[in-house]
Amino acid sequence: MLSMRRAFLLLAAASATTAQTYQRLGTCPTLGCVIPPDQQDFLPGQQFDIRFEVHAPVNGSEANGGIPDEAFSVTIAKDGGQTKSIAEFFGITEEPAIEKWSFSWYEDLYAKDAGEASLVHVASKIYRRVALYEPGDYTVTLKYYSTETTTATWTVRPLAEHKRAKNVILFVGDGMTTNMITAARLLGHKTVNGKYQSLLKLDEFPVLGHQMTHSIDSFMTDSANSASALYSGHKSTVNAMGVYADSSPDLFDDPKVETIVELLRRIWGSAWGAVSTAFLADATPIALTAHTRSRGTYGPLIEQALNGVNNYSWPHTGGPDVYFGGGAENFLPGSGSYKGQDYFAKFAEKGYSISLNKTALEAAPDSERALGVFCKSNLPVWIDRNVFPENLNSYTNDPSGAKKAATDLPGLKEMTLKAIDVLHKRSGNEGFFLMSEAASIDKQMHVLDYQRALGDLLELDDTIRATFKKLEELGELDHTLIVVTADHGHGFDVFGNADTKYLSEQPTDREKRSAVGIYQNSGLSQYTVEQEGVSYNTGSNFPVNWDPRYAIAAGMGASPDRRENYQINRTGSRIPNTRGYVSAFDNTDGFVVNGTLPADETQGVHSLTDVPVYARGPCQETFGGTFNSIDVFFKIATCLGLGQSTNKTLTDSACSAK
Amino acid sequence: MLSMRRAFLLLAAASATTAQTYQRLGTCPTLGCVIPPDQQDFLPGQQFDIRFEVHAPVNGSEANGGIPDEAFSVTIAKDGGQTKSIAEFFGITEEPAIEKWSFSWYEDLYAKDAGEASLVHVASKIYRRVALYEPGDYTVTLKYYSTETTTATWTVRPLAEHKRAKNVILFVGDGMTTNMITAARLLGHKTVNGKYQSLLKLDEFPVLGHQMTHSIDSFMTDSANSASALYSGHKSTVNAMGVYADSSPDLFDDPKVETIVELLRRIWGSAWGAVSTAFLADATPIALTAHTRSRGTYGPLIEQALNGVNNYSWPHTGGPDVYFGGGAENFLPGSGSYKGQDYFAKFAEKGYSISLNKTALEAAPDSERALGVFCKSNLPVWIDRNVFPENLNSYTNDPSGAKKAATDLPGLKEMTLKAIDVLHKRSGNEGFFLMSEAASIDKQMHVLDYQRALGDLLELDDTIRATFKKLEELGELDHTLIVVTADHGHGFDVFGNADTKYLSEQPTDREKRSAVGIYQNSGLSQYTVEQEGVSYNTGSNFPVNWDPRYAIAAGMGASPDRRENYQINRTGSRIPNTRGYVSAFDNTDGFVVNGTLPADETQGVHSLTDVPVYARGPCQETFGGTFNSIDVFFKIATCLGLGQSTNKTLTDSACSAK
Repeated sequence: MLSMRRAFLLLAAASATTAQTYQRLGTCPTLGCVIPPDQQDFLPGQQFDIRFEVHAPVNGSEANGGIPDEAFSVTIAKDGGQTKSIAEFFGITEEPAIEKWSFSWYEDLYAKDAGEASLVHVASKIYRRVALYEPGDYTVTLKYYSTETTTATWTVRPLAEHKRAKNVILFVGDGMTTNMITAARLLGHKTVNGKYQSLLKLDEFPVLGHQMTHSIDSFMTDSANSASALYSGHKSTVNAMGVYADSSPDLFDDPKVETIVELLRRIWGSAWGAVSTAFLADATPIALTAHTRSRGTYGPLIEQALNGVNNYSWPHTGGPDVYFGGGAENFLPGSGSYKGQDYFAKFAEKGYSISLNKTALEAAPDSERALGVFCKSNLPVWIDRNVFPENLNSYTNDPSGAKKAATDLPGLKEMTLKAIDVLHKRSGNEGFFLMSEAASIDKQMHVLDYQRALGDLLELDDTIRATFKKLEELGELDHTLIVVTADHGHGFDVFGNADTKYLSEQPTDREKRSAVGIYQNSGLSQYTVEQEGVSYNTGSNFPVNWDPRYAIAAGMGASPDRRENYQINRTGSRIPNTRGYVSAFDNTDGFVVNGTLPADETQGVHSLTDVPVYARGPCQETFGGTFNSIDVFFKIATCLGLGQSTNKTLTDSACSAK
Repeated sequence: MLSMRRAFLLLAAASATTAQTYQRLGTCPTLGCVIPPDQQDFLPGQQFDIRFEVHAPVNGSEANGGIPDEAFSVTIAKDGGQTKSIAEFFGITEEPAIEKWSFSWYEDLYAKDAGEASLVHVASKIYRRVALYEPGDYTVTLKYYSTETTTATWTVRPLAEHKRAKNVILFVGDGMTTNMITAARLLGHKTVNGKYQSLLKLDEFPVLGHQMTHSIDSFMTDSANSASALYSGHKSTVNAMGVYADSSPDLFDDPKVETIVELLRRIWGSAWGAVSTAFLADATPIALTAHTRSRGTYGPLIEQALNGVNNYSWPHTGGPDVYFGGGAENFLPGSGSYKGQDYFAKFAEKGYSISLNKTALEAAPDSERALGVFCKSNLPVWIDRNVFPENLNSYTNDPSGAKKAATDLPGLKEMTLKAIDVLHKRSGNEGFFLMSEAASIDKQMHVLDYQRALGDLLELDDTIRATFKKLEELGELDHTLIVVTADHGHGFDVFGNADTKYLSEQPTDREKRSAVGIYQNSGLSQYTVEQEGVSYNTGSNFPVNWDPRYAIAAGMGASPDRRENYQINRTGSRIPNTRGYVSAFDNTDGFVVNGTLPADETQGVHSLTDVPVYARGPCQETFGGTFNSIDVFFKIATCLGLGQSTNKTLTDSACSAK
């Protein structure tokens, strides 16, 4: 307890310089770093790496002479157990070598403006691929600079050796908040006298929770490290996935943690898949297998998805059974792919069917592993595919690399239903894990195109509805835990209506604002009111009119400078701001609003807010109330019996040949 | 079914003119109005009035000659039962007289700008104080203008004749959203490496739900009609409480519905109380007993709270057992009180102890009915009472009417704990109902003073924590259903940090915005970091520093023009905007941001968003998932056994003498 208290005091003392705009290393307020740091949780048997760093700042407020202590010592003890060296405790026969590097950072905005960086020299060691099997608390101690100590207490969660759910489907509405779900309901469903005549499928989930999305070292998150929390039970740093970020220059040597699909394949040999409306190397789908602190290394991460981590010994899944999304640029041979290789060919060599359009997807055999890449970059959004399909022709995104538009496109629903067919067929009694992501809720909110974001949210809801039906047909509904959540939010909010005709016709910016009706003057949603000549045939759970005269008036807690008219952009996604200034072509009849973000920001940013978690199926009762993002992993992993007391590992061949 | 379909078609046809910025009568898209309208739900035995209106527009798009049909007929039939006249069905011996009036409205903003009002003549009848005891569907039919028909189908919910919870405490965080709860946690509780070292009491609730807050006739709500939904199971119109809004000129003759405390007192004779940090005549506390479509009629509503509705026969509670809050101006004899009468004297006559400060509150006997009014208007907020107490002297708010400041003030916690003592003492085996409102979460969000709003949210959480402890001490915890929810939201969002020192020192508005740190640059909360010389002694669940250099950067989805610097206002609540222009004295070192609301708005407005519902205690399992605001009433009323198959009414003397 003494050491815990000491660590706390050091943290408090140092945080004034290290815990804000810029940080030396977010998880290391002292000059000695244990990574994973204090208070991290592990599933029994979950594999991970341990890095120690000793920092020697050359200049700046922490300067200590600039010579890092290479003679640091590291020990570990289980509560009530013997203290042992790390190597002895984990039975590591060869003590790792000391590594050395340097990095620099700015202490605050003044230092940055002045170009005065603080230089830090580092000595480090890393112990790779270890695991703790016995539940309880473990204290790791780093001693350095003769008298300094940094401790970390880790908790191994209870054993969970038996499966309660055969299958798990995790839907991620990227950036999706309760505010957005409320707005989507308003657009897609009609009220009569205060009562909805139909509801979202989300509204029918029996259990609801909230999860906290913050990063390990900042209160805001991005989709990389929030995905890591959901998939591995370990929060990370912005841009990092499947690792704790260290300070080394190598983006691929950071200490790793094992993910849900690595565990599932290693322990049960189950099938797994990922579906996304983003490019497949994007954070949410790729974080299932990625181990890097740089989410932008797309090519190498597709290689990791197929073949596992290739620079260190590490559990690997043998590749997904299903991989559907966009992002052909990371598969086609060229600058976007790993070492310029042809990853369509590499997947095909491993027995994958390859689909480049919806027609091929539908025809792909359910019995084979399936790769489907339907365009370059992100899939066009639901509104452009269904309401303004002429916009599809404006892209040059054919997945074959041909300079043409991809037009034979599946949506999230088609991809997800096919994924379930393949996974069900291939998994047999072992069950499967599927992650299905509505990625453009986030991407469209970033560019303030909330109509397109809400279209994709309604598509997600429609997909969940269809998934229930599909699982019921397969006889799997009651064996499947379905979880729907988000990785973070955006500060989107609806606050009234706007008479878009009136707004457009007012002569000045201030007068245009009078078009907004608040409180009783918001009236009822006009998105559900039939209008002659307006029909998209998009089904009963979508608006019948996306461009009514009385539109929702909505905005963001934070945004760049932009122009508002509250109408949908009919020609494609909104581009509110270019190079820090209001786009000349955005909402030309609207009024200019200056933003609250740094003036050079062209997009909106993420929100602090807790996000909802919906659950249905085996273990649903564990998802009520409020919990940390990492607990989503622990709840799912526990339900899947992944907390093992021994190194339960199928042979490598069992994994990769499956 | 034919008549239902016809009603739907009429609705669809008419809504283009009547369902937006201005509406003829929100619940009546046709010219014949049944109020309560189609699709309303009732508790078995819940008393209500029924109004019929026939509209005759003189001009405008609906003009029909301007002579309302006085010979309309009205019938009712239970599913599978006989159709009877309203009078016969309810055993009303004297058919009500025809009433006549006129009103006018604007069809849209163009009509308003031009001053072209549409005039409507009305013929109407109202049937008062009826009830339906048998669960099932009832269809009410209004025939008018020879060939026209408007129908309404009402549903009587299942019987619930037995109490499952002895006591119910309903906490209302006015305007409180998940975004705000997340921000309050960040300010009041410390994280170490992504793990909170302590949590909100809200975070410990086992069951979480979301409720939809929309009005009956617009998708935005205010606190009056949202309170009505929570207390009566009937959504209403902005500014209306305990009634369905009709079109008549009289603000007190609208058709009423019975509220939770009227039901509880009539059926079980239980004790009840209301506590609020607002003035007691404000919407959330007063809606427990108020029946009017105009929330601003403060004096008459205090009279209703004490003596019941005085213009019609109606169930009344005999007055609250506990009534604690602000708003002395509606009790002191004068322009703010009903007929200029002294309501302190009137409450005292009925046996209430009267407390005008915290000292008196503490000394008040637990065995007597208790009125506590601690200031004029709203109570000063937690931050001004605890962090900047010198600000209290700037008010002239003494509840005695003396021209001085009220400084001996209780907070929500002190009022709530005393309320529980009194209610527990007085209720015996019958149990009690308490509503406790943190009102200034909303009031401070309106003026964009989110720091003060979050202070009051943390005070609410602290109050809930203390309530659990108090109930445990009394042996009542497991007999008490505790529900925490909001009546609506505001579009508040945290999106990063701001280096307030840097912001202040930058020379231009655009450069000041560079002070905002987003994503990894948000760092950790500095509100929980001890700083020398800064201590408020406000306890472990509050910030230790409300004015750190690195503050949260936060904003609203909608706001008036204002100036931002992200610092707390040390001298009192923020006044961002006066008369539609940025206040010259607000955040003088900040940068100007133009708003998105009508330019003459001086405050922020409510949000569409669903709000969280936390539940713990008997019946907690019924609060999971997503539901309508009216269902909060039905869940609580069902748990309290208020759905009765007969007119279970204690004698009037039993009520009022209690």
